[in-house]
Amino acid sequence: MRDIQDRITSRLERLDGRPFQQDVWSRPGGGGGQTRVIVEGGVFEKGGVNFSEVHGDLTPEFSRQVLAERERTRAARGEAPRPDVAAAGEGQPTTFYATGLSVVLHPRNPRVPTVHANFRYVEHGSAWWFGGGADLTPYRLYEEDARHFHTTWKTACDRHDREYYARFKKWCDEYFYIAHRGESRGVGGIFFDHLGGDFERLFRFWSDAGGAFLDAYVPIVERRKAEAFTPDEREWQLLRRGRYVEFNLIYDRGTIFGLRTSGRVESILMSLPPLVRWGYHPEPAGGPDEAGGYQSELLAVLRSPREWV
Amino acid sequence: MRDIQDRITSRLERLDGRPFQQDVWSRPGGGGGQTRVIVEGGVFEKGGVNFSEVHGDLTPEFSRQVLAERERTRAARGEAPRPDVAAAGEGQPTTFYATGLSVVLHPRNPRVPTVHANFRYVEHGSAWWFGGGADLTPYRLYEEDARHFHTTWKTACDRHDREYYARFKKWCDEYFYIAHRGESRGVGGIFFDHLGGDFERLFRFWSDAGGAFLDAYVPIVERRKAEAFTPDEREWQLLRRGRYVEFNLIYDRGTIFGLRTSGRVESILMSLPPLVRWGYHPEPAGGPDEAGGYQSELLAVLRSPREWV
Repeated sequence: MRDIQDRITSRLERLDGRPFQQDVWSRPGGGGGQTRVIVEGGVFEKGGVNFSEVHGDLTPEFSRQVLAERERTRAARGEAPRPDVAAAGEGQPTTFYATGLSVVLHPRNPRVPTVHANFRYVEHGSAWWFGGGADLTPYRLYEEDARHFHTTWKTACDRHDREYYARFKKWCDEYFYIAHRGESRGVGGIFFDHLGGDFERLFRFWSDAGGAFLDAYVPIVERRKAEAFTPDEREWQLLRRGRYVEFNLIYDRGTIFGLRTSGRVESILMSLPPLVRWGYHPEPAGGPDEAGGYQSELLAVLRSPREWV
Repeated sequence: MRDIQDRITSRLERLDGRPFQQDVWSRPGGGGGQTRVIVEGGVFEKGGVNFSEVHGDLTPEFSRQVLAERERTRAARGEAPRPDVAAAGEGQPTTFYATGLSVVLHPRNPRVPTVHANFRYVEHGSAWWFGGGADLTPYRLYEEDARHFHTTWKTACDRHDREYYARFKKWCDEYFYIAHRGESRGVGGIFFDHLGGDFERLFRFWSDAGGAFLDAYVPIVERRKAEAFTPDEREWQLLRRGRYVEFNLIYDRGTIFGLRTSGRVESILMSLPPLVRWGYHPEPAGGPDEAGGYQSELLAVLRSPREWV
């Protein structure tokens, strides 16, 4: 994941024209990371490509929550409970180790979608698992962009297991769902968590997926970054970024886990967009034939996820 | 609380120079409300004065959470557990009724502080309680403003119970705390929740507190609204508004309760500021003697709450 961080950062620097700034930090409770951030770049208004590797003890209460959540995930997928669950979280702090790479890019041009990717490996007591994924959040729907993104992930998944893409695409639609808005965060991608089993095989899939990020996203940026946009599109982007914040602070496991384990706040919240507006809009934007038709077109997809491959 | 809503709205309209827009809504599960909102006003960049009265059933899981949280609050205050707790949340949905007034005002001028006030009455199964309070979030510290705000609330509290102010001031400092930042949201005020006992007496206090809101806030707005400010102060305000969002979406009980009980999203999230920036700032602003000295002066108070009366 450190190698992948290097590759992603240098490609993005060429794309943007400006360098990322790097901060190396250590966590008082154990571990640390390398945060690489760009603010007010040429293409990216804000973004980060962060590696971290942290370890320490979870409180019994939080440890129980982590386990309960893992078991809910397993049960929802029809998997059997793990034997280590009953023993863990019984009044003793539980050790954890978590490493991963997180990428979030908020472009300035509203025609270029925001992207998020995360690839993590976690040990908790005697259990371990892989998690991760990547999802695309457009402000204006371009079907060819959504198809390209999904096709790239399907190709990466298919190299390892022909069932992965369908399963992880659905999981992504379910995970990046803003329940109180009744909307998906974007057009999805893939998401997986609590993947256990054959370590070597999963490790190969996980690293390969991390390596597919640039292919999934960079061609979209290149296609859209020079397109002209209207002030209305910019305003819409700022409002939609508000939904991004709502998801990350209310629902996102990674964010909550990071803040609860005394992670480095500025690295965790690097995911939040640079400039955001919240208005008062009890009604959605105009119908598909009006000037703001691209808004209702996007909302239709967010309210009813599609198959892209 | 409807009367208080009317009084607050008309006074704020005179102060701002522009009218609030009113939306009357009903909740599918039971009840409804009157949302009054101002966007891009003369003084208030965004704000709301919202009345709601909702009722229905809580799921057993959420009902247990509400009860557990109430018991944690009671235990933290050294109060005995309630007998109705064991019986509730045992697999049956529990009825609830909640009514209240919420005020949040985000001024455009960074020298005018943001204010929040809430006065609520809740019935949950056979239990009932009053909650509420008001707190001030300045972007630049003016001690006389903080003293005025706190003095007004102390006077309102003292009319009912000489112990209220000290207790509710401390509670406010504890409640409006952004744990992951190690900062209070602002300079506090009063906060109380799960207040039970003599209904008539509590009702008189609660209504009287609601009636004190204008005295606590309006003189501060009048004093500051015409002051000139620098672009730096505006940028700092946008960044600090980010903290406001972090508190409301991660920690605020009212927001989470509202979203979980399928409240009206646009009314609940009216509390979010109009325009917000998230940068990448691992280090706080310059020292007290530098140009941004007002920033570190504010941070010092947020990190170590003071007595203002």
